[in-house]
Amino acid sequence: MKAKIIITPKKAVVDPQGKAVQNALEHMGYADISAVHVGKYLEIELNGADDETARKRLDEACHRFLSNPVIEDYKLEIE
Amino acid sequence: MKAKIIITPKKAVVDPQGKAVQNALEHMGYADISAVHVGKYLEIELNGADDETARKRLDEACHRFLSNPVIEDYKLEIE
Repeated sequence: MKAKIIITPKKAVVDPQGKAVQNALEHMGYADISAVHVGKYLEIELNGADDETARKRLDEACHRFLSNPVIEDYKLEIE
Repeated sequence: MKAKIIITPKKAVVDPQGKAVQNALEHMGYADISAVHVGKYLEIELNGADDETARKRLDEACHRFLSNPVIEDYKLEIE
Protein backbone atom coordinates (compact mmCIF):
# COMPACT_ATOMS: atom_id res chain seq x y z
CA MET A 1 0.00 0.00 0.00
CA LYS A 2 1.30 3.48 -0.77
CA ALA A 3 0.41 6.73 0.94
CA LYS A 4 1.07 10.10 -0.63
CA ILE A 5 1.21 13.17 1.55
CA ILE A 6 1.43 16.73 0.31
CA ILE A 7 2.29 19.37 2.89
CA THR A 8 1.88 23.02 1.90
CA PRO A 9 2.15 26.28 3.84
CA LYS A 10 -1.26 27.74 4.69
CA LYS A 11 -2.37 30.49 2.32
CA ALA A 12 -2.13 33.15 5.04
CA VAL A 13 1.49 32.23 5.85
CA VAL A 14 4.40 33.98 4.12
CA ASP A 15 6.11 31.55 1.74
CA PRO A 16 9.61 32.96 1.04
CA GLN A 17 10.70 29.82 -0.80
CA GLY A 18 7.75 30.13 -3.18
CA LYS A 19 8.51 33.82 -3.69
CA ALA A 20 12.14 32.97 -4.46
CA VAL A 21 11.13 30.37 -7.06
CA GLN A 22 8.68 32.84 -8.60
CA ASN A 23 11.39 35.52 -8.85
CA ALA A 24 13.83 33.02 -10.35
CA LEU A 25 11.25 31.96 -12.94
CA GLU A 26 10.54 35.59 -13.81
CA HIS A 27 14.25 36.30 -14.26
CA MET A 28 14.42 33.37 -16.65
CA GLY A 29 11.64 34.75 -18.81
CA TYR A 30 8.55 33.06 -17.37
CA ALA A 31 6.58 36.27 -16.89
CA ASP A 32 3.00 34.96 -16.69
CA ILE A 33 3.25 33.44 -13.22
CA SER A 34 1.04 34.90 -10.50
CA ALA A 35 2.07 32.76 -7.53
CA VAL A 36 4.26 29.84 -6.51
CA HIS A 37 3.80 27.74 -3.40
CA VAL A 38 6.48 25.32 -2.29
CA GLY A 39 5.68 22.38 -0.08
CA LYS A 40 6.86 18.93 0.84
CA TYR A 41 5.92 15.61 -0.66
CA LEU A 42 6.12 12.32 1.20
CA GLU A 43 5.57 8.86 -0.20
CA ILE A 44 5.18 6.17 2.44
CA GLU A 45 5.15 2.47 1.59
CA LEU A 46 3.20 0.39 4.07
CA ASN A 47 2.99 -3.32 4.78
CA GLY A 48 -0.24 -4.95 5.90
CA ALA A 49 -3.04 -3.05 7.68
CA ASP A 50 -6.25 -2.26 5.91
CA ASP A 51 -6.89 1.04 4.18
CA GLU A 52 -9.03 2.50 6.93
CA THR A 53 -6.57 1.73 9.76
CA ALA A 54 -3.61 2.97 7.72
CA ARG A 55 -5.41 6.21 6.90
CA LYS A 56 -6.29 6.83 10.53
CA ARG A 57 -2.76 6.20 11.77
CA LEU A 58 -1.10 8.25 9.05
CA ASP A 59 -3.56 11.07 9.57
CA GLU A 60 -2.50 11.10 13.21
CA ALA A 61 1.20 10.99 12.24
CA CYS A 62 0.71 13.88 9.80
CA HIS A 63 -0.99 15.94 12.45
CA ARG A 64 1.45 15.08 15.22
CA PHE A 65 4.79 15.48 13.53
CA LEU A 66 4.97 15.22 9.76
CA SER A 67 3.38 18.64 9.40
CA ASN A 68 3.13 21.71 11.57
CA PRO A 69 -0.64 22.28 11.79
CA VAL A 70 -0.15 25.88 12.91
CA ILE A 71 1.34 26.98 9.59
CA GLU A 72 0.84 24.03 7.25
CA ASP A 73 -1.96 22.09 5.61
CA TYR A 74 -1.64 18.50 4.51
CA LYS A 75 -3.42 16.23 2.09
CA LEU A 76 -3.27 12.48 2.55
CA GLU A 77 -4.04 10.01 -0.22
CA ILE A 78 -3.87 6.25 0.06
CA GLU A 79 -3.68 4.00 -2.96
CA MET B 1 -4.52 27.72 -14.52
CA LYS B 2 -2.64 25.78 -11.90
CA ALA B 3 0.37 23.52 -12.35
CA LYS B 4 1.37 20.94 -9.78
CA ILE B 5 4.90 19.60 -9.79
CA ILE B 6 6.15 16.74 -7.68
CA ILE B 7 9.92 16.28 -7.52
CA THR B 8 11.24 13.06 -5.98
CA PRO B 9 14.73 11.56 -5.68
CA LYS B 10 15.33 8.77 -8.19
CA LYS B 11 14.89 5.29 -6.72
CA ALA B 12 18.60 4.51 -7.10
CA VAL B 13 19.63 7.63 -5.17
CA VAL B 14 20.17 7.50 -1.40
CA ASP B 15 17.38 9.43 0.34
CA PRO B 16 18.66 10.25 3.85
CA GLN B 17 15.67 12.51 4.58
CA GLY B 18 13.28 9.68 3.78
CA LYS B 19 15.31 7.31 5.93
CA ALA B 20 15.20 9.81 8.82
CA VAL B 21 11.43 10.15 8.56
CA GLN B 22 11.08 6.37 8.45
CA ASN B 23 13.23 5.97 11.59
CA ALA B 24 11.26 8.69 13.37
CA LEU B 25 7.97 6.99 12.47
CA GLU B 26 9.31 3.65 13.72
CA HIS B 27 10.39 5.21 17.00
CA MET B 28 6.89 6.56 17.41
CA GLY B 29 5.34 3.15 16.99
CA TYR B 30 4.57 3.02 13.29
CA ALA B 31 6.34 -0.28 12.67
CA ASP B 32 4.71 -1.40 9.42
CA ILE B 33 6.48 1.05 7.13
CA SER B 34 8.81 -0.37 4.48
CA ALA B 35 10.03 2.84 2.85
CA VAL B 36 9.66 6.60 2.89
CA HIS B 37 10.61 8.94 0.09
CA VAL B 38 10.73 12.68 0.64
CA GLY B 39 10.42 15.09 -2.24
CA LYS B 40 9.36 18.61 -3.10
CA TYR B 41 5.96 19.88 -4.15
CA LEU B 42 5.46 23.03 -6.21
CA GLU B 43 2.17 24.69 -7.07
CA ILE B 44 2.45 27.31 -9.79
CA GLU B 45 -0.42 29.64 -10.65
CA LEU B 46 -0.33 30.85 -14.24
CA ASN B 47 -2.09 33.64 -16.09
CA GLY B 48 -3.11 33.25 -19.72
CA ALA B 49 -1.38 30.88 -22.13
CA ASP B 50 -3.12 27.73 -23.31
CA ASP B 51 -2.60 24.37 -21.63
CA GLU B 52 -0.24 23.04 -24.27
CA THR B 53 2.09 26.06 -24.25
CA ALA B 54 2.10 26.21 -20.46
CA ARG B 55 2.94 22.52 -20.21
CA LYS B 56 5.81 22.85 -22.68
CA ARG B 57 7.33 25.84 -20.92
CA LEU B 58 6.97 24.40 -17.43
CA ASP B 59 8.38 21.09 -18.55
CA GLU B 60 11.42 22.99 -19.77
CA ALA B 61 11.63 24.94 -16.48
CA CYS B 62 11.40 21.71 -14.49
CA HIS B 63 14.17 20.17 -16.49
CA ARG B 64 16.39 23.23 -16.51
CA PHE B 65 16.27 24.33 -12.91
CA LEU B 66 13.32 23.29 -10.77
CA SER B 67 14.68 19.77 -10.56
CA ASN B 68 18.09 18.19 -10.85
CA PRO B 69 17.57 15.61 -13.61
CA VAL B 70 20.70 13.71 -12.59
CA ILE B 71 19.27 12.63 -9.24
CA GLU B 72 15.60 13.62 -9.36
CA ASP B 73 12.44 12.73 -11.25
CA TYR B 74 9.55 15.12 -11.68
CA LYS B 75 5.90 14.80 -12.49
CA LEU B 76 4.04 17.76 -13.97
CA GLU B 77 0.25 18.10 -13.88
CA ILE B 78 -1.75 20.99 -15.23
CA GLU B 79 -5.35 21.63 -14.24
